[in-house]
Amino acid sequence: MDFRGDQTKKYFKIYNRYKVDVGKRLKTFTEVKYPVTVYAPIRYILSSGGKRIRAVLTILACEVVGGKAANAFNAATAIEILHNFTLVHDDVMDHAEMRRRKPTVHKKWDENVAILSGDEMIAQAYRILLKTRSSRLKNILDVYTDALVQVCEGQGFDKEFEKQSAVTLDDYFMMISKKTGRVIAASTEIGAIIGEGTPKQITALRKYGEHLGRAFQVMDDLLDIVGDTKEFGKEIGGDIKEGKKTYLLIKAIENTGEKNRQLLKSISSGNNISASQVRKIKRIYISSGAVSAAKEEIARSTLEAQRAIASLPSSSAKSMLLWLSNQLRERTS
Amino acid sequence: MDFRGDQTKKYFKIYNRYKVDVGKRLKTFTEVKYPVTVYAPIRYILSSGGKRIRAVLTILACEVVGGKAANAFNAATAIEILHNFTLVHDDVMDHAEMRRRKPTVHKKWDENVAILSGDEMIAQAYRILLKTRSSRLKNILDVYTDALVQVCEGQGFDKEFEKQSAVTLDDYFMMISKKTGRVIAASTEIGAIIGEGTPKQITALRKYGEHLGRAFQVMDDLLDIVGDTKEFGKEIGGDIKEGKKTYLLIKAIENTGEKNRQLLKSISSGNNISASQVRKIKRIYISSGAVSAAKEEIARSTLEAQRAIASLPSSSAKSMLLWLSNQLRERTS
Repeated sequence: MDFRGDQTKKYFKIYNRYKVDVGKRLKTFTEVKYPVTVYAPIRYILSSGGKRIRAVLTILACEVVGGKAANAFNAATAIEILHNFTLVHDDVMDHAEMRRRKPTVHKKWDENVAILSGDEMIAQAYRILLKTRSSRLKNILDVYTDALVQVCEGQGFDKEFEKQSAVTLDDYFMMISKKTGRVIAASTEIGAIIGEGTPKQITALRKYGEHLGRAFQVMDDLLDIVGDTKEFGKEIGGDIKEGKKTYLLIKAIENTGEKNRQLLKSISSGNNISASQVRKIKRIYISSGAVSAAKEEIARSTLEAQRAIASLPSSSAKSMLLWLSNQLRERTS
Repeated sequence: MDFRGDQTKKYFKIYNRYKVDVGKRLKTFTEVKYPVTVYAPIRYILSSGGKRIRAVLTILACEVVGGKAANAFNAATAIEILHNFTLVHDDVMDHAEMRRRKPTVHKKWDENVAILSGDEMIAQAYRILLKTRSSRLKNILDVYTDALVQVCEGQGFDKEFEKQSAVTLDDYFMMISKKTGRVIAASTEIGAIIGEGTPKQITALRKYGEHLGRAFQVMDDLLDIVGDTKEFGKEIGGDIKEGKKTYLLIKAIENTGEKNRQLLKSISSGNNISASQVRKIKRIYISSGAVSAAKEEIARSTLEAQRAIASLPSSSAKSMLLWLSNQLRERTS
């Protein structure tokens, strides 16, 4: 895929316009004032930036099948809130202290506030989703609810894997397809339903989302190692400290020698991993070829995402979806 | 309202049949096995008993407007799961150790497990609700989602009030109408919508639920003082220790002398209240007339609930709704 410079500029402009539009909707909704300990944290997390990638995907998927962007805004906003809910609750469970360069909700307030404002976000997201005008609202709600079911299951597996040493690559892919893939795939699937796509188009866009989600999560694993704290917005090496079974860890265990393998297998929640051990583990990730394998995996999944929508008619929205999938590989945050 | 003994027996029998039917549905849904740390706690809380009052109200409200009980079962199950989700998360936030005579989810597992399994319960409840066959599914989802929005807001106010000393009776009623009233009112409203009641009937049943919810919560406050741990299933005096602004506390502050008032005003989260202070506070609740006032409030709200549905045509379901509202006053758990 080759994009000329002026096209890229145009795409960034459209992306940002959608991002701002969704941001405005998020702002209106967060103007509720009381109870303060419920709505102030929601305002905080929803105004703390973020790429709004899931929201933009919902809108583009609607457009690519011939729908109007405006019809997808409520669903896009709902999906963005759903995603932010997962961040708030996951950060509690992962003891994360930083998110988007700011203290996490439970650090700024406390855990009770994070639990409750997260719950309220689920509720408000459904309220906004229910404003979607579509003859297929039930279908949209089914897809959305399935994404919520699966994202919780994915987080459950993720937390369980932290305490297990024998996690396979298959386990990992199953887990991330639930934890990350399903919400991204729901974004494109719901967008396509709102845009009144054909069943074939809807399936194509769901698959695009699934592959993109896989690329996205492996990239996320990679950024935990090679990223820059300032750009990434959260602690580097956090996955290692938390005992996360990432793509890098599983691949490195497969490919490294016996001595290093013992160190890698000791990565588990509850084991205190020192800063120097984190540095050593990073070196093993590179020397074992796990970092290269991750990059290949990202490239492969990106290509599969692009292939999934290859048969859709050409349009500006389609070009943007292709561009976006490439952008992901360049991301630093 | 006067119920003959054989009628009461009949009503108990019907109540229990519905309870068993809902229990069966809850069991099917909880047969999902993995991730264990998500579904085992859900199975645990949903099989730990409970009155299933909200589920039975949904079914009766459907029947009382001429609908078939069978059509309301999915919604009844969803509402029961929603209620149990609030118990799991509230227990974390309230540091409660016992629920239905068993350790709370976060005590038996840990807080992460309680957070995540609670989230999954919201998701699964929507999934089951979406199985409801009704031409007014959107309406049902609106009411249900509003109940979820409000129950979170109510919990937010409840937790904020714990840290405040100047909570009025108006504040209290606003808080409990969100925290307790709305889900009970949603049960009867949704039941009536499924049963295809007229707008007037639907409003009547929602109001019945609102008044019943108020009676129910004041009774709950009362049981924290006069209940029996074994029957109530949770710690007696827990509200006082947690700094809860209950009906009893607010009424007693209004009615007692200056010396006692100072003690009562010191009830706030974070202040360690000793067992002997709890006993003293209980005595003030009785001597100040707060306990009597609570009983009067329960009687008044029960009567208003009954009045709300007075104009509905006579039926076995209507008699049961009237009977149920009286039953509440007799409850010990």
